[in-house]
Amino acid sequence: MTARYDFASDNTAPAAPEAIEALVAANTGFTSGYGTDPVSARAADLIREMLDADAEVRFVASGTAANAVSIAALARPFEAVLAHEHAHICTDETGAPGLFGHGVGLIGLPGAAGRIEPSALEAALARPDVSYRQSPAALSLTNATEYGTVYTHDELKALTAPVKALGYGVHLDGARLANAAAAGFDLKLIKDLGVDLLVVGGTKAGMPPTEAVVIFDRGLARRFDARLKQAGQLPSKGRFYAAPFIGMLGSGAFVRHAAHANAMARRLAELMPFPVRHPVEANGVFVEMDDERLARLHASGWFAYRFLDGSVRFMCSWATTPESVDSLAATLRDLA
Amino acid sequence: MTARYDFASDNTAPAAPEAIEALVAANTGFTSGYGTDPVSARAADLIREMLDADAEVRFVASGTAANAVSIAALARPFEAVLAHEHAHICTDETGAPGLFGHGVGLIGLPGAAGRIEPSALEAALARPDVSYRQSPAALSLTNATEYGTVYTHDELKALTAPVKALGYGVHLDGARLANAAAAGFDLKLIKDLGVDLLVVGGTKAGMPPTEAVVIFDRGLARRFDARLKQAGQLPSKGRFYAAPFIGMLGSGAFVRHAAHANAMARRLAELMPFPVRHPVEANGVFVEMDDERLARLHASGWFAYRFLDGSVRFMCSWATTPESVDSLAATLRDLA
Amino acid sequence: MTARYDFASDNTAPAAPEAIEALVAANTGFTSGYGTDPVSARAADLIREMLDADAEVRFVASGTAANAVSIAALARPFEAVLAHEHAHICTDETGAPGLFGHGVGLIGLPGAAGRIEPSALEAALARPDVSYRQSPAALSLTNATEYGTVYTHDELKALTAPVKALGYGVHLDGARLANAAAAGFDLKLIKDLGVDLLVVGGTKAGMPPTEAVVIFDRGLARRFDARLKQAGQLPSKGRFYAAPFIGMLGSGAFVRHAAHANAMARRLAELMPFPVRHPVEANGVFVEMDDERLARLHASGWFAYRFLDGSVRFMCSWATTPESVDSLAATLRDLA
Amino acid sequence: MTARYDFASDNTAPAAPEAIEALVAANTGFTSGYGTDPVSARAADLIREMLDADAEVRFVASGTAANAVSIAALARPFEAVLAHEHAHICTDETGAPGLFGHGVGLIGLPGAAGRIEPSALEAALARPDVSYRQSPAALSLTNATEYGTVYTHDELKALTAPVKALGYGVHLDGARLANAAAAGFDLKLIKDLGVDLLVVGGTKAGMPPTEAVVIFDRGLARRFDARLKQAGQLPSKGRFYAAPFIGMLGSGAFVRHAAHANAMARRLAELMPFPVRHPVEANGVFVEMDDERLARLHASGWFAYRFLDGSVRFMCSWATTPESVDSLAATLRDLA
Repeated sequence: MTARYDFASDNTAPAAPEAIEALVAANTGFTSGYGTDPVSARAADLIREMLDADAEVRFVASGTAANAVSIAALARPFEAVLAHEHAHICTDETGAPGLFGHGVGLIGLPGAAGRIEPSALEAALARPDVSYRQSPAALSLTNATEYGTVYTHDELKALTAPVKALGYGVHLDGARLANAAAAGFDLKLIKDLGVDLLVVGGTKAGMPPTEAVVIFDRGLARRFDARLKQAGQLPSKGRFYAAPFIGMLGSGAFVRHAAHANAMARRLAELMPFPVRHPVEANGVFVEMDDERLARLHASGWFAYRFLDGSVRFMCSWATTPESVDSLAATLRDLA
Repeated sequence: MTARYDFASDNTAPAAPEAIEALVAANTGFTSGYGTDPVSARAADLIREMLDADAEVRFVASGTAANAVSIAALARPFEAVLAHEHAHICTDETGAPGLFGHGVGLIGLPGAAGRIEPSALEAALARPDVSYRQSPAALSLTNATEYGTVYTHDELKALTAPVKALGYGVHLDGARLANAAAAGFDLKLIKDLGVDLLVVGGTKAGMPPTEAVVIFDRGLARRFDARLKQAGQLPSKGRFYAAPFIGMLGSGAFVRHAAHANAMARRLAELMPFPVRHPVEANGVFVEMDDERLARLHASGWFAYRFLDGSVRFMCSWATTPESVDSLAATLRDLA
Repeated sequence: MTARYDFASDNTAPAAPEAIEALVAANTGFTSGYGTDPVSARAADLIREMLDADAEVRFVASGTAANAVSIAALARPFEAVLAHEHAHICTDETGAPGLFGHGVGLIGLPGAAGRIEPSALEAALARPDVSYRQSPAALSLTNATEYGTVYTHDELKALTAPVKALGYGVHLDGARLANAAAAGFDLKLIKDLGVDLLVVGGTKAGMPPTEAVVIFDRGLARRFDARLKQAGQLPSKGRFYAAPFIGMLGSGAFVRHAAHANAMARRLAELMPFPVRHPVEANGVFVEMDDERLARLHASGWFAYRFLDGSVRFMCSWATTPESVDSLAATLRDLA
Repeated sequence: MTARYDFASDNTAPAAPEAIEALVAANTGFTSGYGTDPVSARAADLIREMLDADAEVRFVASGTAANAVSIAALARPFEAVLAHEHAHICTDETGAPGLFGHGVGLIGLPGAAGRIEPSALEAALARPDVSYRQSPAALSLTNATEYGTVYTHDELKALTAPVKALGYGVHLDGARLANAAAAGFDLKLIKDLGVDLLVVGGTKAGMPPTEAVVIFDRGLARRFDARLKQAGQLPSKGRFYAAPFIGMLGSGAFVRHAAHANAMARRLAELMPFPVRHPVEANGVFVEMDDERLARLHASGWFAYRFLDGSVRFMCSWATTPESVDSLAATLRDLA
């Protein structure tokens, strides 16, 4: 029996050829460091083009750090950031926002299928601003969400509008922004949402480790490189984090591969013998499965995680094949 | 005129073919994440072999973060770490030790050519342990040093012995450990120095961004992955940080390339028309040059930095060619 | 109409005469600073005597800081502290544990009437120790609890035993330790509970601002003064924080006044026309009251807070008079 | 032989009767908490009057914390604060600015007798704003200085003007502001200096522990109470920190007692058999004395500290008597 990590996460896949080829192509000659090189400049142009926005762009190594640094930029230690209670920053980053944000608070909001319930946001914003608790200073959103759903532009606007009206900041965790785009989310409209800091995920989109931080609010850009350097996120050889974006964005592979991942998730959902809990809008399928069956699945070699809402998650990626979907589905049918 | 970054730093070079080929080779199939994959396991074995030590090994993205996390592991916020006053952690990391170490103090020690003066260390260790200042809890060393010199084993032992005698920790910043090894520093003896945490530099040794953290003190290993994850330094696709070490260590290129870099530095020193300030034992040449000549050098296209001791630094790398050394030397002769 | 803060909190009261007289008595002559003075030594002796324990004692200004510093001493930033979900550290200290503990996590546990439900603690301790979340390193307890109940020694032992069995730390927030003692909690048995750090509340017990930090685990005492100094909690004129404890402990007023406060709470509970939600074991009464009635109560001049469990809280103190209880009760009867 | 701490510091003295009487007078009746009480309001009015400024005022327990919180409010973690290299924040607070400011940097500037050398400040401000080091965001000043000298208004203006021109912040550590005022420094002109945050020392001026934080820049006042609460510096029984200021400011004792302390220092300087190193403008006398003589002084019972500049410090306070000055001087004459 061979261990199969195909569906354990979308970061168990290798990097896509377009990304690797661009990385190899960028590996030539001497160049200046810390993101001042032409490769980084070209990749930043491509991201600005993709977003149709005149924003600052930086390339960093870690999504966890990118999110945490963003949060630290938007909220002070005695303030808090609002986020879905199952957002990655709340549940899967070992308290990184607190480390980088020096104890900054996180206020978890409920909402079905990973989407924040607008009334819960409103209630949180309406709480009195008292000195004995951390009052909100920013909202953190995730698209596609942790549960494989995709906010529409209007849904996000409904969440950011009241936040911006109070002068608070907005962070968008786009670890799976490619999957959202493939599902119809218009990246060129993000600039209208009042997002101050956006993290564009490279890793889960099929690149070697890299994430882009997009600074929409130019006021935040001052000394941002010093902020990143102190956080260990201003890579000296910046071209290695920028190049994969050139390969993926220049070729259209960024969204094309994500569309494939989304399609694989839909295929799996169609073949799924267990009840599917959330709408399958991106590249994840969440199903209801008891512990005994999950243990048997693991025993058969296939890894999958039980999630915070109790469902079991199967993730697809650019590298997921129809054959592996069918093979997993067959195993699941035997279990069901 | 083309800008020439060849000697600006050893991180302006591209990655060596051995490193890139190993990275590409590792980019196959699905694998588990966060450093639990076979590529990471193999690379860790090679590092243990290189060090002849039974230590834990982790692969991270950033040397700045690796150093800062190490310091945070060895000293509490109300304590301090002793280091050469011109050590990278003191002068070039934007206060990263303070961010990751929550205000941990740094006590800069003097010493010629980047080596800590033993009597200065002794004096610092002898200061009374009073509540109104941050007393030392660890020593941070750098080999090769910031000024291109290389500590011998005995020199390091003379520094670590009194520190360990007090029960304090030792961190070794090995951003240029390959250069030290190529200069005769025996890596297999590091384990006898009382080093608790060692950072083995990949980036400056000719790899794409990657650093290895070696945990000699197993007591520090508990929850170290959580420590790294919170710091944004537990890469999900860990194989991309481990693979270059396989390519470089397995082939001997790690030390061989560093030996080349050191040889290029010696060649440059021999041809150098300006006074060389420090012994050229590794891959850097530090010379005395006034501002007017440095400006003219920059105007000619060659970048070089004025360092904290007032000298101008030229760094060589695995990719430095004899021709570029000769070309730079010719330019310098015209200036001198 | 005069605003009445008598029942708004137990820190709205003035300081008791025993405390103030001791403070005035200590205000004589020159003395050494930072807690090294004879007044601090005498107060520490009295606390050791009260606890029948050979522990280190420090006097600090702030309960919030004392708790936060204690938590920082027991858990590292990538770890977490378990506490009742409505514990003061979780809900009323503006994230101070995160500031002093550099992002340290708090895991809120449920439990009726402010007491942690043992099965919830066990479940939390049994969760796998994974790198992507902050695993527990300590337990924080509060006695008397936030809801005016008092843990028995056996109840606390049942909570600390599994925690200590794992080698984790224990912090006891004794902001209302006097009230717990007056309710029968034996302070001399705390040393058997495995408590590492205890905060003995002075402020709510009727002193001017002062809290005592008791270090049962002597291993934690090393450089604790430096820890406090960095945290702004090593007062230069330490005698002013120590002296009130001499006045209160030496005279027995510490527990005697708390017994009075507890009695006033019982009197209020007996006269209370609204449903009392929690057992009245210490100095607080929590009742069910709708918003309209609470608004009318406020309009009548009496302040009271709605608490996190939805109940409205009335606190008694050493200074609460039977007359004020009766007067409040009469007002409440008019509202009910 | 009795140990004599009279000259060891100005915080070895008891509190002045005016301060204690006001504290006792404020200890009556129930009142609202966290600085919202009438005593705090009255004390804030007196401070505004003293400063002739419409500023926010808070009362806190600790000068170390007040300074550190102020610095955290003026500089972000990847920035630095400029200060005299021997300023209290740099040398005597165990790295508190780094703890509260999350690794914020301190840049020590030279200058004779505790006054920052303007050319050193200018050089620091002129350094390029690069990402690999913490660039300045604020200036921290101290008046009276650590060496018992007093900046004039014009001297301070010369330091703050270039700082404000760059949009940076200014913090003034007024631990000995009373002594500066007694030496002729006009407190009503502070508002023209561009000071954003001022700490008015109560403790060293003869009060029980208390410091006032004055927020000149109203933009900094937003959520300042939350900032203080998280830092453990928003006392629930705020009146105990405010009342001493009422007693001291209302009666004029604040400056009158400081004038006495300054006069005692002058008397000591006149009688001093050892060379006096710095101008005696406030309440400290710094003299040149070798280790052997200092040891003999200590053996005679009199405590005094050797300071960072190598001199030995004698501090006077409101409680210093001419007799004790004469007695110390006689002992010193025997040693000299």
